Amino acid sequence: MKRFFNSRDTLVAESLDGLLRSSAGSHLCRLDGFPDIRVIVRKERNAEHVAIISGGGSGHEPAHAGFVGAGMLDAAVCGSLFASPSVDAILAAILAVTGPAGCLLVIKSYTGDRLNFALAAEQARSMGHQVETVIVGDDIALPHARFPRGLAGTVLVQKVAGYAAAQGDTLATVAAKARAAAESVSSIGLSLTDCNAYDTAHTTRLSPGQAELGLGIHGEPGAQQISVAHADTLMQQAAHCLGAALAQKTGQKTTPRYALLLNMLGTVPPIESTLLLEAFAKTELAAQIDLIIGPAPVMTALDMNGFSLTTIALTDDIHKALAAPVEPTAWPGAVLFGSPAVRPMPALPETFRFAPSSDARLETLMRRAGAALLENADALNALDAQIGDGDAGSTFAEGATEILKTLDRLPLANPHQLYTTLGAVLARHAGGSSGVLLSIMFSAAGQSTGNWAEALRDGLASMQQHGGAKPGDRTMIDALHPAFEALVKNGSLTEAAQAARAGADSTKTMTHANAGRASYVPDATLANVPDPGAEAIARLFEVLAHQA
Amino acid sequence: MKRFFNSRDTLVAESLDGLLRSSAGSHLCRLDGFPDIRVIVRKERNAEHVAIISGGGSGHEPAHAGFVGAGMLDAAVCGSLFASPSVDAILAAILAVTGPAGCLLVIKSYTGDRLNFALAAEQARSMGHQVETVIVGDDIALPHARFPRGLAGTVLVQKVAGYAAAQGDTLATVAAKARAAAESVSSIGLSLTDCNAYDTAHTTRLSPGQAELGLGIHGEPGAQQISVAHADTLMQQAAHCLGAALAQKTGQKTTPRYALLLNMLGTVPPIESTLLLEAFAKTELAAQIDLIIGPAPVMTALDMNGFSLTTIALTDDIHKALAAPVEPTAWPGAVLFGSPAVRPMPALPETFRFAPSSDARLETLMRRAGAALLENADALNALDAQIGDGDAGSTFAEGATEILKTLDRLPLANPHQLYTTLGAVLARHAGGSSGVLLSIMFSAAGQSTGNWAEALRDGLASMQQHGGAKPGDRTMIDALHPAFEALVKNGSLTEAAQAARAGADSTKTMTHANAGRASYVPDATLANVPDPGAEAIARLFEVLAHQA
Repeated sequence: MKRFFNSRDTLVAESLDGLLRSSAGSHLCRLDGFPDIRVIVRKERNAEHVAIISGGGSGHEPAHAGFVGAGMLDAAVCGSLFASPSVDAILAAILAVTGPAGCLLVIKSYTGDRLNFALAAEQARSMGHQVETVIVGDDIALPHARFPRGLAGTVLVQKVAGYAAAQGDTLATVAAKARAAAESVSSIGLSLTDCNAYDTAHTTRLSPGQAELGLGIHGEPGAQQISVAHADTLMQQAAHCLGAALAQKTGQKTTPRYALLLNMLGTVPPIESTLLLEAFAKTELAAQIDLIIGPAPVMTALDMNGFSLTTIALTDDIHKALAAPVEPTAWPGAVLFGSPAVRPMPALPETFRFAPSSDARLETLMRRAGAALLENADALNALDAQIGDGDAGSTFAEGATEILKTLDRLPLANPHQLYTTLGAVLARHAGGSSGVLLSIMFSAAGQSTGNWAEALRDGLASMQQHGGAKPGDRTMIDALHPAFEALVKNGSLTEAAQAARAGADSTKTMTHANAGRASYVPDATLANVPDPGAEAIARLFEVLAHQA
Repeated sequence: MKRFFNSRDTLVAESLDGLLRSSAGSHLCRLDGFPDIRVIVRKERNAEHVAIISGGGSGHEPAHAGFVGAGMLDAAVCGSLFASPSVDAILAAILAVTGPAGCLLVIKSYTGDRLNFALAAEQARSMGHQVETVIVGDDIALPHARFPRGLAGTVLVQKVAGYAAAQGDTLATVAAKARAAAESVSSIGLSLTDCNAYDTAHTTRLSPGQAELGLGIHGEPGAQQISVAHADTLMQQAAHCLGAALAQKTGQKTTPRYALLLNMLGTVPPIESTLLLEAFAKTELAAQIDLIIGPAPVMTALDMNGFSLTTIALTDDIHKALAAPVEPTAWPGAVLFGSPAVRPMPALPETFRFAPSSDARLETLMRRAGAALLENADALNALDAQIGDGDAGSTFAEGATEILKTLDRLPLANPHQLYTTLGAVLARHAGGSSGVLLSIMFSAAGQSTGNWAEALRDGLASMQQHGGAKPGDRTMIDALHPAFEALVKNGSLTEAAQAARAGADSTKTMTHANAGRASYVPDATLANVPDPGAEAIARLFEVLAHQA
């Protein structure tokens, strides 16, 4: 069992202490009966407001300690893993936060929680406190259960109650609103896995092809075992099940509007969480949803890889209560549910932004250079095959082909315009890193304020900066750099060709490659093989010099 | 492979659309080149501010789309799973959000991202836009890498840049601050699992006892394979590794202060996330941390079950930038790092809050009743063994023993005080649901405004409300309810005993139990066996009636 914990006994206390240290917990503190009494309270609260208290077994984080804060809970009582907290702990929480306005206990419907919270409430009453309770049983998976289980709907009831308390409502009003909310929540869970309560002997009851629908949050078997399927299919099943229960609850005549909480059960990665919401948007039930909360882990079940859907029937008051901002960052917020908003694409630049212009000598040089790269493709591929994946020649040839095709559309008479255009052509068509690098070089050269040769040197500097290679790293830069330096000096293609050749040859003795593809190759393999990129550049310049 | 998705091809687009529909995405929209061009932008932005743009391969959610919003990013460019976005997509993002103030591209250091973002930047410049770039390479796991990988530190650089832009800083200043931040971030990852990029043929490279330290976020092998161990031990190793790299970076002379981002890699459940922060608090490195961000999933790697630690050296400016609130809810916030705050426990009520008082007749009755429960323990256990776990008699006997021990401390002369005290005694000592239920009954009776008999009836109503059982459900209520009704009528113990006996006997013919332990027992098993709780109550009243 690969899990991050130290021991089952200390897990809950360590997790709560971590919460208090975290960026989600700076407004929280714990009562010093810790760790026997695990009660998390707000550092500050308005003593005139009704206090909202919840809790239960641990293993459902961020519920409930993560929801302590302005606008939601005043205290959370945290039991051991999946075990109700003691009456003393609950009573301590009540006494710690309850003032003259009284308190409301929000209780998930599990026998232990119902009884222990009720007893603590009675004891607090016997001490003169005003205490009300609300039981949440939102599970719709077991329609014949007298006490449906309390699931993620509990958090919605906490939110409604917390909002009422923050508005200054009396205890009777807060309790009435919370009870109305509890009547209006319905939940169904679906999971691909069961959960493991840190039991090293745990074995899953599910085969690789099985999932479960209608489950609780303590690892109890789901109401149905179903087949693993596409996310859309699984979501359809869960939403259909929930929709049917809602229809039965409300009758066929009315079609209430709902808020939906999409709750993650513990180990669903973020990329899948939002995908599940997109899957939900395709269900029939989605048409009845006005407000969306999540997706987010709100009421988890340890490491369960699943989700639950909770609806709450909307009234104006409940809508307002859910949408109000709160202090606890674990509350995912509630916003109008709709289609993804879209904005028009900006127009991408034309590849050929400049009027074509002619330069007979340059056109001849370019034709010859292109032809040379095509002629050398096989030889360069063969060279590359010794040290890389054998496509260096093809990559250069593809770029050359694209440029040759567009010769009559190029602004040949203006070097900077030409560089910009070559950069754009290569950006669209050139493959591999070397194509992107040359595109960067030409694009940057087009932006240079120097002359035609200086512009190339500036472009190369940009390529070096972004690609990260420099002279001596066994890349095409070892030929380009000396060639461009020669061009800047006196514009001689002959000298540039000589410099490029010397640079390419020098790569044969560079036994350790620091960048580019050869950096993945053992040094011994590299001995006496020139870098194919540098060799391509050298051959190109040799052709140009000869032609000139 | 049990995962929530439909197909690898549609995964990223569906996940992004879900984000836009979610409660985290109501301020976002996408460019309509979707899904080929996957660019997420803010619905509204201050056009005078420098635009902050980031992106890269998908699979790292909430990075980067989840960080688009006021105070962080203006646009996120989302590639395919673990693949750099196209130059056109990046250029579209730049053109969509960049105004006269220019834009900054925050780039994770991976070859594809470095090159494609650089090329898009050059193209945008060639269209007249002011574009700066910053490369983030915060990984410290491979000290000899020329280009350390970009990990979760990227999000901290986005935060610093976003804050500067929101302050109205010029592009040069924003870029300088972002580069300084990028120089100051260092990260190390640790995972219990590798990640699976939705490849059905994927097999893990790790044995059940292996974990990895120093890993990237694309499933590449970690720098070291280590043994699975307690969370504290694993965290020590990661923190030690990071601490050593920081010491080397800064030299022995200075001990900078840091902010720590505790990032979750994808499938760590919330209970373990905060536990990991508590584990970090025990490391040596913790002493150098002033500010904490998380734990939260910030830069994930699909379903990787691991975490990463990122430090950023603090200056006043960086502290202020990190602590500023932002619109994206995926940003976990940054708060001072310290020990859990503690508040004193409230005094729990004394069990014996009232002055003892005497009532000779009542004391005799109680002694006799207690003795009867002790005498009947075995018989009641035997009865319970037929339908439950055989401890009903013992549970009643334990409660009786506790009450007998305290007889001389009870306020016998005041029924309401007595009930409250009995409730408190049972709350501390009684085991099982029936003990808690009787404690609720007595506690509530103590709060009743009725006479001594009416108070018992009111207490029973409270027990019924909280326990959920009612007469006819085959519980002790079937004896208590008629007995208390008789007492309310005329106070006759004889009539109460007769009523309790009739009630207990009636449970023999209740074949379907709706509440209590017998609700888990097949109906046939129940035939002709009375409920042990009801039987205990009946025997108790019979003794009291005989004694009186």
